[in-house]
This record gives sequence, C-alpha cells and structure tokens, in this order.
Amino acid sequence: MKTARTKNIPGAEHLEGRRTKKISRFAGRLLAEWKRLALPVTDARVIVAVSGGADSVALLLALDELLNAARLSVSLTVAHLDHGLRASSQEDARWVEALSRRLGYGLELERAGVKELAAKAQDNLEQAARRARYEFLARLGDGEAGEACVVLTAHTMDDQAETVLLRLVRGSGAEGLGGMEPVRRLHPQSNVRLARPLLNWARRAETEGFCRALDVEFRADEMNEDESFARVRVRKRLLPLMRGINARVVEALARTAGLLREDSRTLDEMAALLLGEARSFEDSRALNISVLASAPASLRRRALRLWIAEGRGDLRRLELVHLVGVERLLAGERGGRVAELPGGSHVSRRRGRLVFHPKRVENGGEHD
Amino acid sequence: MKTARTKNIPGAEHLEGRRTKKISRFAGRLLAEWKRLALPVTDARVIVAVSGGADSVALLLALDELLNAARLSVSLTVAHLDHGLRASSQEDARWVEALSRRLGYGLELERAGVKELAAKAQDNLEQAARRARYEFLARLGDGEAGEACVVLTAHTMDDQAETVLLRLVRGSGAEGLGGMEPVRRLHPQSNVRLARPLLNWARRAETEGFCRALDVEFRADEMNEDESFARVRVRKRLLPLMRGINARVVEALARTAGLLREDSRTLDEMAALLLGEARSFEDSRALNISVLASAPASLRRRALRLWIAEGRGDLRRLELVHLVGVERLLAGERGGRVAELPGGSHVSRRRGRLVFHPKRVENGGEHD
Repeated sequence: MKTARTKNIPGAEHLEGRRTKKISRFAGRLLAEWKRLALPVTDARVIVAVSGGADSVALLLALDELLNAARLSVSLTVAHLDHGLRASSQEDARWVEALSRRLGYGLELERAGVKELAAKAQDNLEQAARRARYEFLARLGDGEAGEACVVLTAHTMDDQAETVLLRLVRGSGAEGLGGMEPVRRLHPQSNVRLARPLLNWARRAETEGFCRALDVEFRADEMNEDESFARVRVRKRLLPLMRGINARVVEALARTAGLLREDSRTLDEMAALLLGEARSFEDSRALNISVLASAPASLRRRALRLWIAEGRGDLRRLELVHLVGVERLLAGERGGRVAELPGGSHVSRRRGRLVFHPKRVENGGEHD
Repeated sequence: MKTARTKNIPGAEHLEGRRTKKISRFAGRLLAEWKRLALPVTDARVIVAVSGGADSVALLLALDELLNAARLSVSLTVAHLDHGLRASSQEDARWVEALSRRLGYGLELERAGVKELAAKAQDNLEQAARRARYEFLARLGDGEAGEACVVLTAHTMDDQAETVLLRLVRGSGAEGLGGMEPVRRLHPQSNVRLARPLLNWARRAETEGFCRALDVEFRADEMNEDESFARVRVRKRLLPLMRGINARVVEALARTAGLLREDSRTLDEMAALLLGEARSFEDSRALNISVLASAPASLRRRALRLWIAEGRGDLRRLELVHLVGVERLLAGERGGRVAELPGGSHVSRRRGRLVFHPKRVENGGEHD
C-alpha cells in the first residue's frame, strides 16, 4: 500500500531524478533543507512531533516518502502530547495514533494537564502548552545519545512570521526578532538537536496542499480560530493587512529574522569575549565595571545577559528593564548599588565590581 | 505679547525651576532631550522645518518658549517647503509665514513641483516629497558652518513606530529597522547635523495637546488621511490592531529601533575594520576574497555595503538581493564572475579579488 501511494503522488512531476524512486516536490524541498541543515541522513533516530495539524502531518508524510524512497535511512518515531485542553484533544491523540500505525511508525504519547500547569506556573494557556510540549520533547530526547538523535517540529515560514510580529509587538530586541532557530539544542544541557526543517521554506498553504494531494486528512485546532489568542489575531488580522502593503510579507519577515539571527550570533560571540575580559580574576562570579563601562552598549547588554543566565540558570522573565537596571549600576553612585532580578536574585555593585547573588533556582530551561 | 503668552501656558505646573522663568512640561522635555543629544545651547543657528502640522508647530512653539525663557540662546529660522501637491499647499505656506512673522522668526520658503520630480525620478509621490524636503534642508544647511548649525525636523515617536513597521513589512534588515536617527549628518558630505529632538519621547497626541494648550491652530494634511499611502494604513489600521495586543506598542517599537541602532553601530564599526583588512594593497578599489569569505555573514554583508557605497557614492536602490549577488562571487566558480548593481555599476571577481566597476554616478545622496 505504501508503494502504491508513493507512486501515485500528484504533484510528483517535479523530481530530483537522481535515483530511481520519484519523490514529490514537497519531499524534495524537505530533503534539500535537511541537507542544508546538516541533519543526519543515516544511522540516527528522528522523533517528529505531530499534533495532527496540516503542518506536522505534512512533515510526517514527507519523511515517510523520503524513507520509502530510500533518500533517508533513519529510525522514525512519532511524538504526540495530548494537552487535555479540549474535548477533542483525546480524539486528536487517537487520530495521530491511527496515522502512525497505518504508516508503520512507533508513537510516544503523553498526556499533560496544561490548564493545571498554567495555573501553577502563572503562565497563560499558550505559554503553558508550549512549555509542556517542549518539556515532553526534551524528556524524549534526553533518553537518546546526542548527535544521533534529532527532534523535529513542523513550524513553517508562516509560524516564523507570526513569531517575529508577536515579539515585535511585545518589544523584543534583535534576539527575539530573529524568531525561531532552524536548528538549536533541545535544551541548554542537551546534545540532541531540535530541528525545524519546514521553517525556512514551507508555507502553511503548501503543507495543507501536500496533505490533500496525498488524500490524508488533518485535524483542525479550534485554538487556531480563537481571536482571544494574540497569535491568532496576528495571523488572521495583522498579516492580511500587511499583505496589502507587501504581498510577500511572510517571506520578508522570515528573511529579516534570518538577518537578525546572523547579527545576533556575531554580537553574542563578541559579547562572550567581552564577558571573558570583564571577569574578575579573584572572583569568577564578579565582573570588572571599568571593562563593561567602556564597551559599546549593544555588547555590554548581551554580556550582562550571558552572565545573568549563567548565574540564574536561565533567562526566564528577564526583560530589558532588568538589564537597564544592572547597567545603571555601572554609572556609579547615582544609580544605586543593587539591581533586583525577577525570581529573587540580584546584582550588586561593590568596589568597582558587579557581583551576582543567586536567590532561588527556578526549574527548567527557557524554550521558545 | 510673547511674554504674556509664555506666562499663561496651561500645563506649566511642571517646572524645571532652576531659573526664574517657568517653562511648560513639553518645552522642559524638549530641553532635556536637546542636552542629551548635545545640541548647541548658545551661539548656533537652528533651522526648523515647519510643515504647519501639529508636530512641527509644537516644536516651533516649544523652541520659542525656550528662547523667551532664555533656556536657549540660538538664532532660529523657520523653513517651509511648499510641495505644490494640493490646492491648499499655498495656504499652508502662507499660514506658516504668518506664524513665523507673529513669533518674530525669519522664514526660508521654497516651492517644489513634487509631481514633476516624482515622474522624473520614477519615485512615488511620498518618496519624491521626502526627497524634495531633505534636499531643500540640505541646501539651507550647506550655506552654514558645520557644528554651529543644526537643522531640525519634528518627527515624533509615532513617526518612528510607523517607519519601523513600514520597513519591516518591506523586508528591511537591522539597518532599516533601526528607524530614524535622532541625530545624523544632514548629508554624507555635510558637517551640519540634522536633529529630531521629538523622536525619542513625544507622542503625536502630545504635540497636538501642546498646540491646543497654547491656543495655536495647526494645519491638517489631507495626505495623512489618504489610505492609498502605505504609511497611512500603518497608522490608521495596523498600529490600532497592535495596540490591542500591547497598549504601549509605539513605545515598544521605538525602544526596539533604538536597540537595533546600537547593534548596527557596533556591527558597522566591526565591518569597517573588516573592510580595511580586506582591502587589497595593490589596488584600493579591490578586496581580497579570502578575508571576506572567512568573516561572519553579518559583517561581510555590511563591509560589502560600505565598499559599494564608496564606489557608487550612495546606496540608492541597493537591496539585499544585490548584496547576495556580490556574496555569491565569493563562493568561486559556481557563482559566476560578475554581479550587477542597480544604476549600471558592477562588481567582478578576478584572481582572488572583488573589483568594483563604476558605470554612471547618480546625483545626490540617499536621505530618509
């Protein structure tokens, strides 16, 4: 049955043609991006997060196609987190289970009480759901051996554009405006990579089209229609307005995000050098103020951010206003002697140095 | 009459209080920004561009207040460019003339046929009007002696937010997303500064409020209501939607722009160093490919941009796609040997070097 389906793929006119088995244009573009991102083509375990929506179903189907066509030779597992948020979420889980079984892949299924998690962490539902998903994926990845395991999410270029706009509206700097990374560590302590092989090229309309072309249903998430979520308003109202000014605004936003990620990478590298220079010989938790004060603001702020991340273990809830507070300490007496950080830690100024004082360590790393 | 008006300013409750004469909160904030931007407090000529709209009228009135209160001691001239675009534009000119006369300031008045300029330069009306305005201001400034002259425009924080969004929609990188500079050279060859002393703090509602508080009318520009202009759609439709997600989105955008300007400044400085390193000893117009190829993309692209600006005299119509074309030359044979630039110049790759070939020099610099 697999073979028949693979052969009958409509839209398979566009072929790579280097091997005997024909692959669809969508799978071909996925494979090209897979190689560009240096993801493993053989001897690896690949865990793909599938919600049941068009994006993740298209990713799963395209991977299945590449495996069937022997363009990839990896061990594929499907992962699904049931958020327990909606009546239909159990149905979604059963649906993903059936699809995985039909395609012949193992499924990692877990259930989370996102509502309870949100209340506990004082997050909104969106944040709590996102956190629960990434923590689930992190747990799956942590059982695996580094380079040989990749965890995939099906974020598209549309998701990237929405992320950039949301962060812009909320007042991000270049770090946030860079949007999602196509590849990053699953979490700061992990060697497992989290990859988004649709992010740089696939539009949502294409993932839907690919599912339809293969005659595979996908699930619609009611939350995608609920305009009480800022992301939904960005998608359904902001982006259409912007499209009236530039029809290719999604591509433009994705490209801008890529440029800003490159800028951030360069600035982060220089900030790490600055941090090294600023570190006190006598006390590695302290920084020399004179070194920081003479550096450009863009590097100083990033160096302070790195240093605070070291001290706190993460950057949760750290905002520009906190960094500005720490920067004020550099100015001397006028700026006071202590800058509070969210979560109870603080930075003090003492004899020409900044000193970090941990208070309590919050659990988990920050995920996007 | 001046004295009476100055004394009766409503809202003058908020005082700096260091001198005898009371000043309004609006003028006080202008003075604080004036000092922060290191603009001259005495012995200078200040040319203020006044369209007749609330922003520029408020700026003129606040400057007048600071001069009357002896907080500033500079020679003030009003500049007005009649775009000749609307029936009412002559009325605007006469209105600005009357206001200047009433306040006791000289007026530089000029008329431009923006429609004809737009047709000639193949610009849209907005672009042509902006260019005509800045060229008018540049001519005024060029008669002046460097540091001792400052040209002012009345752009507010709202203008900055609109600029950032427009550039984002059109696909800018960090340079563009930094928005307008609070202070820059009037044009690349000028020592005269162009300053925007309202940009970092004043909201449009405040400039209108300040005019009203002083019982001074201002002119309404019909173009500000015309939704065929992208900027007007950004102002009247996009920003209100964004305000539904973050009530302080204008401030957030202005702050982001400031952060990105700082980032750009740091990256530009490093790119200038890279350009110096890459410059060929034998031919100063040529660059060593090996130096560029090993640099981070964010610096390489900026170094190429600087180098192209040198060669062409400006960056008009240069887009990312052109830079990417030049970057492809670095990759060697696969990338071909010539990259065309807009306006007829090009870059070629020859024996491990990039060489710039000017074609024809376009007139004038690029203004924002």
